[in-house]
Amino acid sequence: MYIIGERINGMFKEVRRAIVEKDKQAIQNVALAQVKANAQALDLNVGPASDKPIEAMMWLVNTVREVTDVPLSIDSPKWEVQKEVVPNVPGRAIINSCKADEAELERYMGLAIENNASLIALTIDEKGVPADAEKRVELGALIATKAMECGLPMDSYFIDPIIIPVNAAPAAPANVLNALQQLRLLSSPPPQLLLGLSNVSQGCNERRLINRTYLVMALTAGMDSVILDPLDTELMNAGITTELLLQRTIYCDSFLEAYRMRGA
Amino acid sequence: MYIIGERINGMFKEVRRAIVEKDKQAIQNVALAQVKANAQALDLNVGPASDKPIEAMMWLVNTVREVTDVPLSIDSPKWEVQKEVVPNVPGRAIINSCKADEAELERYMGLAIENNASLIALTIDEKGVPADAEKRVELGALIATKAMECGLPMDSYFIDPIIIPVNAAPAAPANVLNALQQLRLLSSPPPQLLLGLSNVSQGCNERRLINRTYLVMALTAGMDSVILDPLDTELMNAGITTELLLQRTIYCDSFLEAYRMRGA
Repeated sequence: MYIIGERINGMFKEVRRAIVEKDKQAIQNVALAQVKANAQALDLNVGPASDKPIEAMMWLVNTVREVTDVPLSIDSPKWEVQKEVVPNVPGRAIINSCKADEAELERYMGLAIENNASLIALTIDEKGVPADAEKRVELGALIATKAMECGLPMDSYFIDPIIIPVNAAPAAPANVLNALQQLRLLSSPPPQLLLGLSNVSQGCNERRLINRTYLVMALTAGMDSVILDPLDTELMNAGITTELLLQRTIYCDSFLEAYRMRGA
Repeated sequence: MYIIGERINGMFKEVRRAIVEKDKQAIQNVALAQVKANAQALDLNVGPASDKPIEAMMWLVNTVREVTDVPLSIDSPKWEVQKEVVPNVPGRAIINSCKADEAELERYMGLAIENNASLIALTIDEKGVPADAEKRVELGALIATKAMECGLPMDSYFIDPIIIPVNAAPAAPANVLNALQQLRLLSSPPPQLLLGLSNVSQGCNERRLINRTYLVMALTAGMDSVILDPLDTELMNAGITTELLLQRTIYCDSFLEAYRMRGA
């Protein structure tokens, strides 16, 4: 699984403080801890921390880039932010995210191609998050088709079939699993399929239990990339063990440690 | 998920002692603890505890039946044991197990029908445990076909596609998931699909982590019945949460407790 660490997000109090006070060390510590815990990319989200979102995002980019070379996911729904920030990211950027609207896909895919960046495209259209699996698959197919037309290579985009909280949308987790199973049949090899995992448990009790259970389920259904908290040890253990049982790694008595050695 | 509790097994030291010393109280405690922890049936296995397996099994049956009415799974590969014990089980028995051999299926299904018992049929033939998913599916189809011919109703048999330890057979867990996905398409509604869960981790480190991860994976792939240790709280939490995320239950803040209330 390709892991994008979720912890640099202005929704977390300590991160918000660090952004406001321009505390580079605090942000860099969270960045390095996640990379050490096997994050292969880092999500950056200024959250509600700033009324100057472009400036705040560039500060995060430059602060994190001082300590690690991993791809940086520019997490903002605003085109102005993406347009200004992505060309100025040293190294690889991931545009996070755009919707599955033809014009928007063309614009965002153009930005990705020009800057050798990746793109996370959500299966959302003007009607919002689909209620069923079928619409998710239809929009996923639109994303894959547009990428082919625009010349964005398969390893440079992720289809995100959008998981929403189980307490508000009881059918959503099963629908997304169903969508993943179908989306992986879109092509061979399959497109990269990603979820923002922790959204499944937003507002729920037992959040970490729900997150790690759904991680195992989604990986089993075909998800190969995920935005999650790599500092949650039990979550990572669940993911590592799933990879073992899907035969993506081979059993040894220290299979947990062996996996973690990659990030260390 | 339909849960058959695995703990009354002569392979456990304390159970072996209780069988040898005919300590009814000790066996009854394990039986009641499992039923309280949501086991809907109890597996009985004398293990290496006795050189008189029929007598020992009947003692277990009668001992457990004194305290609970749940179905009792007579866990023995020996036809002589099944033939003698099953007709003498008060209440419902589950014959555990037979192989997917035509003559053996007919004999065991006859015994099940005569005694209003259930049957666990393994996707094993004279060549042993299949190396791939396809052979498991083929043998599963043979079991379903034979049941129809013999008149054994769908709710009275379980197809077990046989999980073997991941350390010895690295491809087995993925092959079994693949087989489950195909077996559930055999009919509508699907046949009951069962695994003896803990076998996946036999001889491994991190047994409980592997067991609970594979439980989530197998339920996601279509398993609906399982022999497991209901006294393993984290294992049960993983299973309960999977059912929630498959929308077999509905979220409430106390969804773990709500599920457990059923067994209490």
